[in-house]
Amino acid sequence: MKHARKELWFEVSERRAYLNITPQVEEFVGESGIANGLCLVNPMHITAAVYVNDDEQGLIRDFDDWLERLAPHEPVSQYRHNNGEDNADAHLKRQLMAHQVVLAITDGSLDLGPWEQVFYAEFDGRRRKRVLLKAIGE
Amino acid sequence: MKHARKELWFEVSERRAYLNITPQVEEFVGESGIANGLCLVNPMHITAAVYVNDDEQGLIRDFDDWLERLAPHEPVSQYRHNNGEDNADAHLKRQLMAHQVVLAITDGSLDLGPWEQVFYAEFDGRRRKRVLLKAIGE
Amino acid sequence: MKHARKELWFEVSERRAYLNITPQVEEFVGESGIANGLCLVNPMHITAAVYVNDDEQGLIRDFDDWLERLAPHEPVSQYRHNNGEDNADAHLKRQLMAHQVVLAITDGSLDLGPWEQVFYAEFDGRRRKRVLLKAIGE
Repeated sequence: MKHARKELWFEVSERRAYLNITPQVEEFVGESGIANGLCLVNPMHITAAVYVNDDEQGLIRDFDDWLERLAPHEPVSQYRHNNGEDNADAHLKRQLMAHQVVLAITDGSLDLGPWEQVFYAEFDGRRRKRVLLKAIGE
Repeated sequence: MKHARKELWFEVSERRAYLNITPQVEEFVGESGIANGLCLVNPMHITAAVYVNDDEQGLIRDFDDWLERLAPHEPVSQYRHNNGEDNADAHLKRQLMAHQVVLAITDGSLDLGPWEQVFYAEFDGRRRKRVLLKAIGE
Repeated sequence: MKHARKELWFEVSERRAYLNITPQVEEFVGESGIANGLCLVNPMHITAAVYVNDDEQGLIRDFDDWLERLAPHEPVSQYRHNNGEDNADAHLKRQLMAHQVVLAITDGSLDLGPWEQVFYAEFDGRRRKRVLLKAIGE
């Protein structure tokens, strides 16, 4: 069995951002030398998510509006967590996006459908944060 | 280490449908020859989900009503993605259902609780779509 | 390849509760003897969830309020599933929380960010229920 681990670091200048990280995950799989296996892509921070969906700018703005509607940032005082903090909504938004994904590795590459793209969703940016990649297989 | 891969294909005649695919996943696990491992069940399309819940018709209708309430199909013009498309809601609904599952394999079978059933949730049907099964173990 | 399996049993006295189970999952990883691999943490019941987020009491109450708002328990008659049952909302709430997690194992320990804590979320308590831990690796 082989295994590999890598951290991807991000620092976005906005509170919220959606970054297509498929190339970085694909590069990691290539470096790992794993031909068949599973790859976990997991944010190591609890105010961010990793999800798989379409890389289409209209949809990304739809996601952002929708998350704001179901778990609004304002008023920050509506959340008990916001006692010296203002990021409670980010903790909720990441749960709505299901926050982590497991990807198949087949023949040395990510085994994705034609429109599946891997995103890092930042909900409380403006500082350095990271995503854990961990793959096992052979 | 062993590994196995299979695609399940579906074409439903409605826009939305909920199909219990537990028997197909169980059959795949049997074919794989894997006694202990993990099995990813992942839709290869970004307007569908795989989830685990109860196979009870009342609940399935409750899910459908609830998803429609939190991510409504109409009016289609409310979504920026719906520029020549009408399926933005399907992209959101799949996130609400957390869209993929990983299942344990123990003693050559799916290691499920008594009521855990695996579903394919179609949110933009009327065309051929597929689910990826990938298992690793020994 | 190594593999390990364990069930964690819970019985909470309230309908809903949020239990930090990180120490039990860490103990399981230690017992497994796996240095590098993946660990599935999955509720075997479909009215509960396992999720990763912050162990902060204000946030936990925010989660509970928010889940009640998006998938309310009352009136129980609003759900078709509640025909002799009253737990339809628990089936929905678990989907919102994405219901299962896969964790990386590195150097014999859970590979978690500084604030990542693993929770068992009970949405229909007052009876014995269990979580499946399944790890593979080497």
